[in-house]
Amino acid sequence: MSENYHAMWAELGLDLDAHDQLLQILGNAYEQIYLAQKDRPESMSYFDFVMSEVHGLRIRELLDEKKAGRKIIGSYCVFVPEEIVLAANATLVGLCSGADFAMDEVEKILPRNTCALIKSSFGFKLGKVCPYLESADMIVGENTCDGKKKAYETLKGIADNVYVMDLPQVKSPAGRDLLRAEFYRFKDAMEAFTGSEITVESLADAVGVVNAKRQAVHRLSLLRGHDPAPVSGLDALLVNQVFFYDNPARFTESVNKICDELETRIQASKGVFPSGTPRIVVSGCPQAVPNWKLHHLVETSGAVIVGEESCVGERGTRNLTNAGGSSVDDLMEAVIDRYFKIDCAVFTPNPDRLEHIEEMVKNYNADGVIHYGLQFCQPYLMESIPVEKALEGRKIPVLRVETDYGSEDTGQLKTRIEAFIEQLR
Amino acid sequence: MSENYHAMWAELGLDLDAHDQLLQILGNAYEQIYLAQKDRPESMSYFDFVMSEVHGLRIRELLDEKKAGRKIIGSYCVFVPEEIVLAANATLVGLCSGADFAMDEVEKILPRNTCALIKSSFGFKLGKVCPYLESADMIVGENTCDGKKKAYETLKGIADNVYVMDLPQVKSPAGRDLLRAEFYRFKDAMEAFTGSEITVESLADAVGVVNAKRQAVHRLSLLRGHDPAPVSGLDALLVNQVFFYDNPARFTESVNKICDELETRIQASKGVFPSGTPRIVVSGCPQAVPNWKLHHLVETSGAVIVGEESCVGERGTRNLTNAGGSSVDDLMEAVIDRYFKIDCAVFTPNPDRLEHIEEMVKNYNADGVIHYGLQFCQPYLMESIPVEKALEGRKIPVLRVETDYGSEDTGQLKTRIEAFIEQLR
Repeated sequence: MSENYHAMWAELGLDLDAHDQLLQILGNAYEQIYLAQKDRPESMSYFDFVMSEVHGLRIRELLDEKKAGRKIIGSYCVFVPEEIVLAANATLVGLCSGADFAMDEVEKILPRNTCALIKSSFGFKLGKVCPYLESADMIVGENTCDGKKKAYETLKGIADNVYVMDLPQVKSPAGRDLLRAEFYRFKDAMEAFTGSEITVESLADAVGVVNAKRQAVHRLSLLRGHDPAPVSGLDALLVNQVFFYDNPARFTESVNKICDELETRIQASKGVFPSGTPRIVVSGCPQAVPNWKLHHLVETSGAVIVGEESCVGERGTRNLTNAGGSSVDDLMEAVIDRYFKIDCAVFTPNPDRLEHIEEMVKNYNADGVIHYGLQFCQPYLMESIPVEKALEGRKIPVLRVETDYGSEDTGQLKTRIEAFIEQLR
Repeated sequence: MSENYHAMWAELGLDLDAHDQLLQILGNAYEQIYLAQKDRPESMSYFDFVMSEVHGLRIRELLDEKKAGRKIIGSYCVFVPEEIVLAANATLVGLCSGADFAMDEVEKILPRNTCALIKSSFGFKLGKVCPYLESADMIVGENTCDGKKKAYETLKGIADNVYVMDLPQVKSPAGRDLLRAEFYRFKDAMEAFTGSEITVESLADAVGVVNAKRQAVHRLSLLRGHDPAPVSGLDALLVNQVFFYDNPARFTESVNKICDELETRIQASKGVFPSGTPRIVVSGCPQAVPNWKLHHLVETSGAVIVGEESCVGERGTRNLTNAGGSSVDDLMEAVIDRYFKIDCAVFTPNPDRLEHIEEMVKNYNADGVIHYGLQFCQPYLMESIPVEKALEGRKIPVLRVETDYGSEDTGQLKTRIEAFIEQLR
């Protein structure tokens, strides 16, 4: 950190000793995993800076926004519509859920057999080490999987102002009606909470801001399709992770700057790995900061990751919102349309996801797919088997991985990943 | 079996050798667990007969119904409304899901970390040992938990005519709208499938039949409140299990006959265990035939089970349907009202369940609660922790048990159960 933020963290109620330890571990991991990479794009330096200030400068900015009367809304899912939050003059941030913390405390209130992501979100709260969570004026949960749905009931007992959005399970007209009703309920809740009415201007502006952010990531995704890959999967994953909490306009500008640099690289046939390096699409559960485990294992085993079919990746960023509406209702319908397309495994059936994986394999010239499942994540683990069968039926090699945030299985995983990559050569 | 049914089973496509083995195991278990009990009510002999003919006479009856043009509808959940099935001149039967079978085959298409109930339902299909499933003309699944919801996608690939009913996750007006839409869709599907229009007469009649069945079970439940307990938990559990597949009118008559006998016993202060035996309510996941593990362990460890807060128990049987409607729509609304009250852990929040557990403890003079969770059943395992906390806050002792259909943990479970019972004395 470029500054001493201890007073700020103390004011947020963080456990300073535990938090210092967390930052130390995070900093070491970043150095060993990110800074150890070769031939990184120079413009990744912005993201290095963001990470070095992940609990510092960005939190100060959020606190400054709060002082100026703006509300901070925290979320754990790509179903929470940033467009509506921004249009109500509030800021949306993704909350910490990518590392194990205070697991002894967590397992007193959640079953041990709960996925790492949910346990982590509770660990950051109970361990008092997530300044985003402590800065948030409202936490917006969502009824996606059973684990999260039931966990939010418990979260209400340990965190303030938890709002839960219901979600459909089927992409039927009734399912869309439910999503519409819930997005309007959320709009009303945001307006009431911020005191800012959502107008056609504010919503159109918000749609424009979020579309621009997604477009920048789409541009980056397409550039990753080139061989040699102009950027590592690790660096692209980081961009997708920072998507959730950076200032949107600055993020968009920074991603476009990377894209400019990658275009120059591509013209010069310059890459981060040699041409012909086996190329992999990762599909499955989200990977929140600092969950860099799979990407690190793959990219230190002789392959490059060229796309993430994940909530932290294209499942979260694909599809823009039609910005052409001339009324709040028009724009709301466009927002609902856009979010109703999200191909999360909580939907039954969920055929769009399989199509999207195949499309990614084709567009990014991938040689195979690694299905990344978090242990005890029923929707993705259940879906991984038919996805594997379908892809294999189309001659796309697949490796199914089931893991958590621990390091106990690293050796075994590396062996399996190396064998899979060998098969792709 | 009183007759040789091999030709019938062969015609249904069962694996005769495997099925013979299954029946052998089932018969032995029934002898050792049920017939070994002392002082059973004489009228339980009907249920002994039912169990001795579980894959025999009842299947022949169903096949006779089919020959006469009636459709057989299979289901795995108390959310599938028997009233609508009966009103369309069809028969509803619960499908096998209470024992491990063909697990090697199952784990090729479902994750190992799936609950025993779901894996069992697939095992009976893949192992070709469930004559109910093979007799069913349609299987009605339902979007309750993530596990079942996603498993039905896979079931469609191995079983014919799987229909899936969507369900709400929240008891809001929108949630009730969804249930209403789905029950009407199911009504249309039943009418189309059977060719029988549901009329006010047929629906009123069906409501009467199912209400009578539930009323008989309510009567039995109340009688279990007496000390000494006039019937074992095991026998009452069996009644609740047979509820799902017996002929409704005959079942009702048989349960009322048991109740008559129990009333005589109560007047004579006669019980199956001595007065003062610790009394336990079991709450949590359903126990399908032949899952008698927990009840057997408890009742051979010095306590008696006096109620099941479970889908195979009061969660499935409580609440009658208002039979007073004078139009199909009136009666449909009454059916929807009744099913919308089911306090399954897939709902968020689910406060009615806690109230119901407390009510059962009070009404049946229980000394404690055992929360029965199937391993990997996220909704009930998640909910078990707040339920335990709330009950303990009201000075009701609770033991949380997490198990599967295997016998590996029997010794350890028995030790824990004995210690818990000791605490209740």
